[in-house]
Amino acid sequence: MTQPQLTINDFQKLISDRYEKVDRERGSAKTFLWFIEEVGELATALNGKDRENLQEEFADVFAWLCTLANINEVDLAEAVKKKYLGKDASKDHK
Amino acid sequence: MTQPQLTINDFQKLISDRYEKVDRERGSAKTFLWFIEEVGELATALNGKDRENLQEEFADVFAWLCTLANINEVDLAEAVKKKYLGKDASKDHK
Repeated sequence: MTQPQLTINDFQKLISDRYEKVDRERGSAKTFLWFIEEVGELATALNGKDRENLQEEFADVFAWLCTLANINEVDLAEAVKKKYLGKDASKDHK
Repeated sequence: MTQPQLTINDFQKLISDRYEKVDRERGSAKTFLWFIEEVGELATALNGKDRENLQEEFADVFAWLCTLANINEVDLAEAVKKKYLGKDASKDHK
């Protein structure tokens, strides 16, 4: 790849530029339903053998997570920095 | 922020470095259960008024999505580039 590394901010902004107006009109609860539909498709893909579909479903879940973050004014990069990279970064993981 | 922008790759690698050994031993199905627990906590936070908790739950869902990607050999940055940034990038969004 000659492209520069994609930042979390860049991707969240791309999703915002492309979809946020419609996402915002739909609202958070209905958007969560679409997010969960993608999570279900990820579960199906994890049970299958289609690698390309699996990658696509990971991408879709991440995209819908960005959508949810956008319409709830959450900066995903800041959120993960605070939780996982800061000096108070949590070490708790199951 | 004086920190450089966090890339998707960097964050996926951080989660790998910190947790992948344990995640891999746990396996994909059990890891999916933990992921869904975090998705549930995100739903609770979306219904609440605690902004700090909401940010944290977004971070956790993203972290667990990276975990699932790690143990399934999926490069999340490549997956979103292919689906959302390529010349064949999908425009379909609900």
